[in-house]
Amino acid sequence: MEEDLTIWWDDEEGCVRMIDQTRLPVELKVIACRTLSELKEAILHMRVRGAPALAVAGAFCVVFACRERCGDLEKAAYEIANLRPTAVNLSYGVNRALSAAMRVYDRADDMFAEALNEAKRMIAEDIDVNRRIGERGAALIEDGETVLTHCNAGRLACVGWGTALGIIRTAVFNHGKRVHVFACETRPLNQGSRLTAWELMHDNIAVTLITDSAAAKIMRDGLIDSVIVGADRVVKEGFFNKIGTYMHAIVAKEHSIPFYVAAPTSSFDLKKSEKDVEIEERGREEIIFVGNEQIAPLDIDVRNPAFDFTPHQFVSAYITENGVFRPEELINSAL
Amino acid sequence: MEEDLTIWWDDEEGCVRMIDQTRLPVELKVIACRTLSELKEAILHMRVRGAPALAVAGAFCVVFACRERCGDLEKAAYEIANLRPTAVNLSYGVNRALSAAMRVYDRADDMFAEALNEAKRMIAEDIDVNRRIGERGAALIEDGETVLTHCNAGRLACVGWGTALGIIRTAVFNHGKRVHVFACETRPLNQGSRLTAWELMHDNIAVTLITDSAAAKIMRDGLIDSVIVGADRVVKEGFFNKIGTYMHAIVAKEHSIPFYVAAPTSSFDLKKSEKDVEIEERGREEIIFVGNEQIAPLDIDVRNPAFDFTPHQFVSAYITENGVFRPEELINSAL
Repeated sequence: MEEDLTIWWDDEEGCVRMIDQTRLPVELKVIACRTLSELKEAILHMRVRGAPALAVAGAFCVVFACRERCGDLEKAAYEIANLRPTAVNLSYGVNRALSAAMRVYDRADDMFAEALNEAKRMIAEDIDVNRRIGERGAALIEDGETVLTHCNAGRLACVGWGTALGIIRTAVFNHGKRVHVFACETRPLNQGSRLTAWELMHDNIAVTLITDSAAAKIMRDGLIDSVIVGADRVVKEGFFNKIGTYMHAIVAKEHSIPFYVAAPTSSFDLKKSEKDVEIEERGREEIIFVGNEQIAPLDIDVRNPAFDFTPHQFVSAYITENGVFRPEELINSAL
Repeated sequence: MEEDLTIWWDDEEGCVRMIDQTRLPVELKVIACRTLSELKEAILHMRVRGAPALAVAGAFCVVFACRERCGDLEKAAYEIANLRPTAVNLSYGVNRALSAAMRVYDRADDMFAEALNEAKRMIAEDIDVNRRIGERGAALIEDGETVLTHCNAGRLACVGWGTALGIIRTAVFNHGKRVHVFACETRPLNQGSRLTAWELMHDNIAVTLITDSAAAKIMRDGLIDSVIVGADRVVKEGFFNKIGTYMHAIVAKEHSIPFYVAAPTSSFDLKKSEKDVEIEERGREEIIFVGNEQIAPLDIDVRNPAFDFTPHQFVSAYITENGVFRPEELINSAL
C-alpha cells in the first residue's frame, strides 16, 4: 500500500507540512509550519505527537533554527528538546540534526542544508525501521487474534506505518492474518478514539473502541489475546509510555495475557534510570474540558501526568527493528 | 450539617423533585417529574442515578403507576425494574412500594397512599443507613489519609449523605479527621468529574481529579492509603459496580492498598451469582461524543459496558450499616 506520511519537508515552499492531529477524526487537515516558532507551537499543542514523529519534528526545528540563524544553536536545541521532556526521541532527533549542522560549523551557509539532509534521512529510516518492527512483531500474532492497544502508536505517531499498529498492519497486509483491535480511548486527549480508531478504520482493519477503564473487563471476558503498546522511552528498569499503560500492564499480567512493547532502538536509553526521566505534567484544562464541553468544576484541583512508568516485570517482550527481546535480554543486547 | 436531598416527594404539587445530575457541575438544577413516563425518562437518561437513589426512584415509579391506575401493576413494576438492570436497588425499591400497594389491593383508592408512604419510609431509611455506613467506615480511615474513589457513591448517588463519600463525610465532619480524596473522572459519563468533584468541593473536602487510567501511577507513587467505592450489587462471588472498578481493584492489590466496598445491605443479593446478573450495555454515543464534541469516528464499532464485576478476592472488606465484613464472612453473616 502507498505510504502516507504524517510529517514531511515541502521542497517547493521550503516548509514543514504535517497532518494536524488535533483536528482528527473530524477533519483530515494538512498544515504548514514555516518558522521555528510555528513548529514549536505545533509540538507543544500536539498537532504532531508520538515519540518517533517527534524525532523528525525535532530535527526540522533545528533545520529552521539554522535557516533563521539562531545565535546560540545549542541553546535553541536544548529548548526544543525540552518542549516535551518524557520521550527520548525528541532530543534524539534534535541532536542528530544538530550534529549534522555542527559538522559544517565553519561554513554557516551549509548548516541548513546539512540539517535538512539529516532530517530527510531520518524520515526514510523511520519508515524502514517501522517496517522491520512490523515484521518482527507480526510473527507474534496468530491469525484470528485480538489485540488491545492504548494511545496511538500508529502511523500518526511516526512518519509512516507505525510501531504497535505497524505490527498489526504487517500482520494484516503482508501476511494476510485476520486481526481485530480493541482501541482504548486514552484520556485525556483521546489519541485512541481520535487517531487509532480513525487510522485503523481508514485501512479497513477491524477495530472496536472502549474506554480505558473497560479494558480490565474486556480482558477478564477473555476477548484479548495480547496487548501491544508503544514506548516513549525505555530505560534500565522499565519503560515510559502514555498514562494508562501501567494499568493495562498490571491487568494483562493478572489475566496472563502477553504484553508487548513496540519501539525503535532510538527509544532505548538504557543508561538512564526511572528517576532520571521527568514525567510531563500537562495543563488542567485537558481534564476539565473536552473541546468546549466543561466536564468538571472550573476550580477543581487536578493531577494530569501525561505518562507513566511500567517496570520490566510486566513486559513479555520488547519488539524492535533489530529483534524481539525479553526484558532480561536488553542489558546484554546490542541496543 | 443540613441534609441536602437528591430526590424527594413534593406534597404540595404531588410530584417527584430531583437534582438533574446530567446538568452538574455546570448548573445545580432541580426538576419535577409529574408522571410515570417522566420519571422513567429521568431514570433512563440518568438524571437520577446511583444504586441507593435508584431504589427510591423505583418506588416513586410505583407511586405514579398507582395514581395513574396502570392496568397491570406487576407488569409495570417489571418494566420499571428493567430500565437499569445491573443494580439490584432499583428492583428492590420497586418491590417494596409494590408490596405496600398490593397489601391494600382490595381498596384501590388507598394503593397510591400506601406506596407513597413506603417510598417516604425508604428516604428516611436511606439517610439513616448511610449515616451508619459512614460511622462504620470512618473507623477505617486515619487522620491525614488519602482515599481514592471511582464514580460517584456520594450523596448524589443516594438520597443524602452517601455511601463511599458518606464515609469520608463522617470522618471529616463527625470525627474531625483530615482526609484528601482522589476522584477518578469515570468515563464515559464522568460521574467522578461532574458529581464527586462537585459534591466534595461543595462540602469543602479536599479533592483532586484524575483520569481513570492515572490511578495506577498515583498508587505506585505512594499517594493513596485506601480505595473506597460503592456497589450496584453484591453477589455470591463478588460485586458489580461502575465500569473501571475492577481495574482499580487489581491495581490496588498489586500495590497492597486496602480496597473497600461501601454499600447498604439492600445492595446485597447473595443468593445470586455473577452469571445471573446482566451488565447493562449503554449507547455508542456516550463514547463517540462528550456533549456536542465528537471525539471518535461516527461509524466506529463500540463496546460500552456500564459496569464490571470484581471477585471477592480483591476486596479487603464490605462496609455496611450492620458492620464491616471480610468477603469470607459474608455468607455466614445476617445479610
